[in-house]
Amino acid sequence: MKIGFIGYGEAAYNISFGLSKEGLKGIRATDAMMNDSVMGKQVHTRAEAAGVTLVSSNKEIAQWADLIFAAVPSSFTMDVCKDVESVLRPGQLYVDVSASTPSIKQAIWEQVKNTGVLFVDAAMLGSLPKDQHRVPITASGNGAEEFKKLMTPYGMKITLAGEKAGAASAIKLVRSIYMKGIAGLMIEMLQAADAYGVSEEVIASISKSMDGIPFTSHLDRLVTGSALHCTRRAAELKGSIAMLGEANLSSDMTKATKQRLQDLEEYEFAKRYVDKKPSGWKEIIETIRVK
Amino acid sequence: MKIGFIGYGEAAYNISFGLSKEGLKGIRATDAMMNDSVMGKQVHTRAEAAGVTLVSSNKEIAQWADLIFAAVPSSFTMDVCKDVESVLRPGQLYVDVSASTPSIKQAIWEQVKNTGVLFVDAAMLGSLPKDQHRVPITASGNGAEEFKKLMTPYGMKITLAGEKAGAASAIKLVRSIYMKGIAGLMIEMLQAADAYGVSEEVIASISKSMDGIPFTSHLDRLVTGSALHCTRRAAELKGSIAMLGEANLSSDMTKATKQRLQDLEEYEFAKRYVDKKPSGWKEIIETIRVK
Repeated sequence: MKIGFIGYGEAAYNISFGLSKEGLKGIRATDAMMNDSVMGKQVHTRAEAAGVTLVSSNKEIAQWADLIFAAVPSSFTMDVCKDVESVLRPGQLYVDVSASTPSIKQAIWEQVKNTGVLFVDAAMLGSLPKDQHRVPITASGNGAEEFKKLMTPYGMKITLAGEKAGAASAIKLVRSIYMKGIAGLMIEMLQAADAYGVSEEVIASISKSMDGIPFTSHLDRLVTGSALHCTRRAAELKGSIAMLGEANLSSDMTKATKQRLQDLEEYEFAKRYVDKKPSGWKEIIETIRVK
Repeated sequence: MKIGFIGYGEAAYNISFGLSKEGLKGIRATDAMMNDSVMGKQVHTRAEAAGVTLVSSNKEIAQWADLIFAAVPSSFTMDVCKDVESVLRPGQLYVDVSASTPSIKQAIWEQVKNTGVLFVDAAMLGSLPKDQHRVPITASGNGAEEFKKLMTPYGMKITLAGEKAGAASAIKLVRSIYMKGIAGLMIEMLQAADAYGVSEEVIASISKSMDGIPFTSHLDRLVTGSALHCTRRAAELKGSIAMLGEANLSSDMTKATKQRLQDLEEYEFAKRYVDKKPSGWKEIIETIRVK
């Protein structure tokens, strides 16, 4: 199988390095900066380390490869697609691993679909330096199944996310809202706990609320509770914001939380649920769905 | 035991109602609005329901009671304290249940400490309408132990948080940063997942990362990971923010997360930890501690 990388940065280097170790030889790559007097050196050093042959243009990769990894920054990924579109062919795999929004991935699919190419919206959900080619990838698009079938034998960890270009990227970017968000909250919370000398007590209290309960149960309880009691909870956060201010600490996350709770006030959930309880988060999200 | 409430709103009503049901009779209360033509009616109706006798002034409560609950909004709690200070006496319990910042609770303690009163900074950590007098309370101050000893037989759930006035309130307000914050994150995340039709996949993916792992392990992993990779993770959130914008959804929480990650850049954690790994969140928080 002929594998080519358009763009040879962090992602391409780590994936190709891992694939080479799996015995996949003859990988080729190109990079817009490969002949740059400053940046080019790293491209060459990395290609050599991974046993990858550098070629001079995107089109050369696209004409030669059975499987193309488009591995450039989000802002360049449409340019690459347009550059190689004329040489794409039916059955060839075009795997866009850029961290683009769902709408960009959809636009790329629209751009290439008449070529007969198999398109894959691939979103990486882990650490490349740590996992290399084994980084968990979620893949959508009409080429996702074929991509999984071809690359699983070489150790790649690919999860399917349907036929729709953009779905995989949506999963990655939506997931990041929560997973990176709780890290931000942890830092804001721990700095405050540290300033007031109550770290142990607060962590014990939160652990008691969180541990051993499935995430889906927390979702149901916290989303419905916040909807029903948004006004009171937003008001309570004034105290936390005042405290952070008194300790000369940032309250970015807490101010945003207060705003998010206030945004729920217009839906008057407490009035909607006088006689019954919401069954879970879905009822709340359906009510506030943007039409 | 003579129990008196200064302020007879939501907190006082629920606690006194529950204590009456436990057999504690003869509770007295006063409220600044009790003779108000509009608001007064609710005070009287509630007092009657709870079997509580209304009296006409804060001082009357303070002179009569063995245990005073100061249960007024945060902005009035210092006024109440100054109003009754002259009649407070050694050994009497003064329990401030207002949702004030640690510095307000400390200031109240400074104001009353020469009277010999036993002061309790009491912070409620649950739902009053649901739990009534059994709402989990964390208590600090020189009267916290006595408060717990006296009220536990009547069903109150009091956890001790040390001798320091303000510590209990700090625990409550710091805890809220995280517990209310994750509710805000859940809503921002679920709205986006809903808009892109990927709710099931995202929830499954987050569940896989969260479930069955103690909160303290998440703290260590996410705080150190965010510190080491703050620049990349902040940049990655640009995609999430762009996606939320394209779906016409609020990105308040995610923008705040991006800012919190960027705030870590100045500490250059990646450089500090070239040869070793941080042992956990404590090392990170100690480094960014506000002096």
